[in-house]
Amino acid sequence: MKKRYIMSPGPTEIPAEVLVEAAKPIIHHRTPQYRNVLAEVLEGLKYVFQTKNDILIFPSAGTGAMESAVCNLVSPGDKVLVASVGNFGERWVKIAKAYGANVEHLAFQWGYSVDPAKIEEKLKSMPEISVVYTTLSETSTGVENDIKAIGKIVQKYNAVLVVDAVSGMAAVEFKTDEWNVDVVVVGSQKGLMLPPGLSFVSLSNKALELAKKSVSPKFYFSYESALKSLKAEKLPDTPYTSAVSLIMQLKEAIKLIRDEGIENIWKRHSKLASATRAGIQALGLKLFPIDSYSNAVTAINVPDGIDGSIFTKKIRDEYGITLAGGQGQIKGKIFRIGHLGYADTFDVIIAISAVEMALYELGYPVELGAGVKAAEKELLKK
Amino acid sequence: MKKRYIMSPGPTEIPAEVLVEAAKPIIHHRTPQYRNVLAEVLEGLKYVFQTKNDILIFPSAGTGAMESAVCNLVSPGDKVLVASVGNFGERWVKIAKAYGANVEHLAFQWGYSVDPAKIEEKLKSMPEISVVYTTLSETSTGVENDIKAIGKIVQKYNAVLVVDAVSGMAAVEFKTDEWNVDVVVVGSQKGLMLPPGLSFVSLSNKALELAKKSVSPKFYFSYESALKSLKAEKLPDTPYTSAVSLIMQLKEAIKLIRDEGIENIWKRHSKLASATRAGIQALGLKLFPIDSYSNAVTAINVPDGIDGSIFTKKIRDEYGITLAGGQGQIKGKIFRIGHLGYADTFDVIIAISAVEMALYELGYPVELGAGVKAAEKELLKK
Repeated sequence: MKKRYIMSPGPTEIPAEVLVEAAKPIIHHRTPQYRNVLAEVLEGLKYVFQTKNDILIFPSAGTGAMESAVCNLVSPGDKVLVASVGNFGERWVKIAKAYGANVEHLAFQWGYSVDPAKIEEKLKSMPEISVVYTTLSETSTGVENDIKAIGKIVQKYNAVLVVDAVSGMAAVEFKTDEWNVDVVVVGSQKGLMLPPGLSFVSLSNKALELAKKSVSPKFYFSYESALKSLKAEKLPDTPYTSAVSLIMQLKEAIKLIRDEGIENIWKRHSKLASATRAGIQALGLKLFPIDSYSNAVTAINVPDGIDGSIFTKKIRDEYGITLAGGQGQIKGKIFRIGHLGYADTFDVIIAISAVEMALYELGYPVELGAGVKAAEKELLKK
Repeated sequence: MKKRYIMSPGPTEIPAEVLVEAAKPIIHHRTPQYRNVLAEVLEGLKYVFQTKNDILIFPSAGTGAMESAVCNLVSPGDKVLVASVGNFGERWVKIAKAYGANVEHLAFQWGYSVDPAKIEEKLKSMPEISVVYTTLSETSTGVENDIKAIGKIVQKYNAVLVVDAVSGMAAVEFKTDEWNVDVVVVGSQKGLMLPPGLSFVSLSNKALELAKKSVSPKFYFSYESALKSLKAEKLPDTPYTSAVSLIMQLKEAIKLIRDEGIENIWKRHSKLASATRAGIQALGLKLFPIDSYSNAVTAINVPDGIDGSIFTKKIRDEYGITLAGGQGQIKGKIFRIGHLGYADTFDVIIAISAVEMALYELGYPVELGAGVKAAEKELLKK
C-alpha cells in the first residue's frame, strides 16, 4: 500500500465531494434541470472571478480558452503585445502568430516578473496595439505578475488586457473588475479543484467591442455563438454539447469555494506558499523566482550535484508524490511544488518532508527535519 | 421516487463501471502511468474505429473534432463538397464557410439519405474538390448514410473523405479502413458510453498529405502538434493537459466494448432499432426517415392533434424519461428515441411503453400494449 499525492501545479487533488459528483448518472444538457445548474455555476464563477462580466464555459483545456482570446480578438496583421515571463506566457506568442498577429514580444527573463512600466512604454510608442496578453501566475517559473498595476496602465489605452489566470484563479488574489482586466482565461484543473476538461473566459464590454471587429476564422471557440446561447430565453444554454459531468462537479466545487470564501482561499494559499518557501530555504535550497513569488506554486532550483529528473522520479515512484520538474529552457534545473486548490497545512509538511528525505537519500547534505521545522513555524503564525 | 432514463441520442446512459472511474483520485498526465493508459485507449479506439490509422483525442465536444477536420484540411478559397441530410450535416457547411472554404452543398431533403451517385457527379464535374464532408448517422433525422458506397467513390478521386460518425460510432456498422474513410470524427457521449467532453479523429495518409497544405490558422486543434505528441518518445503524450478523468472512463468503456465485440454491438443496435421501429409502427405512428434508418436513433413524426413539445415534456417530467424533440426545420414535428450505447432490450420496452401511455393520456387513439407487443415479437427473433 502506498498513499499517493498530487502536488503538481495542475492537475491538482480533487475533494471527494467533487469526485463523487462525476459518478452520478448523466443528465441531458437541453433540459431545465441542467440549464439551472449552468445558471448556478455561472453565478458562482462570477464570484470566483470577482466580476460582473459574462463568463463563457468551453469544453476544452485552458489552452483552448487562450486560443479563444486570440481568434475572437485578433485579425491578421493586428499589432498585439505579449508580456511573458515563462513557458505559458510564450504560448500567447505562438497562438497569436498562428493567427497572423503582428506580435510585439516583451520577453522577461525566466525567474523575473513583468515590469509594468515596460508595458506602458510599448503602449505609448505603439498606440496601434489592440491587445495585451500576459499571465497571472506563471506555472513554469513560479512567478506572479502584478496584474493590478498592469490593469491600471492598460485601461488608459485602447488595448484590451487579456490575462491567463489558468493556474492563478481561486489561488492567488485576483479581482477582475477592480483591476480592469478585460479578458480572463481559466482552466478547471487548478484552483477550482476539478479534473481537466473545462475552460472559462470572462469578457468586458471593451473586449466585446473589439471582438466585433475580428475576422479570424472561428467556430468552436466563437464568442458570438457562445454568448447567443448564454443569453437564451429563460436560462443559459450552450451552442453544442456541454461537458455535463464536469459541470456537475463544478457546481460542487463552487459550493466549497463559497463556503470558505474567496478572500480566505487567497489567505490560505498565501500561508501555504510562505511555509513552503520557508521550509525549502531552511534546507539551504534556492527559490527560482527572483523578484516575485506565486502563491500557487513554488519553483526551486535543483541543488548542485543532484540530477533533477532522478530527484522528482524518486519522489514520485518511491514516495508516491507527484511534484513537477522544469519545462523548456529550465528543464532538469528546477522542481516545482504545487500548493493550490485542495491543499492544506499538512500537504506542505508532506512536500517538505519528502524533499528532505529524498535529498538525504541522494547524499545531499541536509539536516532531516530542518525544513519541516521552518514550515511549521510559518504555519503557526497568526 | 422516480427512476430516470436518458433515451436521447446523446448524452446516453453511462454504465456504472464507467461512472465510478471518474470518482477515483486524479492522476497526473505527464507520468508513465497515465501515458500507458493513453496508449491503451488509443489501441482500443483503433479497434472500435476498425482502422490502422492514427487517432487523435481532443478535450472537446464532437463539434471541436469537426472543426479540426476543417481547419487542418482546408485553406481559404478551397473547393469542398458537403453532402448533408440534416442539422449536423449542415454544421459542416457553417464550419467550412467560417474558414473561407468555397462550399459546394449537396443538401438532401431532410428524411432522405445521401445519394452517392450525386457525389460522384460533383467529383467528376469539379475535380478541384479537395474534401468531401458527410455524416454517418444524422442525429437530427434518424437517417443513416451509405458510407461504404460513398467511400468507394471518393477514393477514386483526389478528395479526402471526412465522416461525422459522432452518433454512429460503436452503434451502427462502420469500417474506417475497409470503407476508405480518410477522416472520422467522433464524440464521447454516444456509442462510447461516456460523458461528453472528449472527441476523436482518425487520419489516413491521404488526409495527412492534404493537412500539410492547409494554411488556415489553428493551435488547439492542430493535427501537426497533436501528432508530434502522439509520437513522443516511448509513449503517447498530448500537447496540452489531457482530460484525465474522461480518459480513465474511456479505458473502462473500451473494456466493455472489447468484451462484447464490435460486431455484436452493431447487431445489438440493429435489433433494438428494429424493435423500436416495429413498436412505433404498430401504434400507427409514422417514421420520419424515408429511404434509410439509423440504428442509433429512431425519428418519429408527432401524430396529428398532438403537440410535440407537450408530448416529450410530459414523458420527461411525469415519466422521468428524456427523449429528444426535433431540431431546426422539424422542431416540434418529430420526436426521437435514442437506443445507442448502453442500451438493451428493456430500454426499448420502456420507451415504447412510455410513448403508448403518453399518447393515451393525451387522448390520442392508441391501443395500450400494442406497441410493446410488436417490439417484443421483434426482440424475440433469433
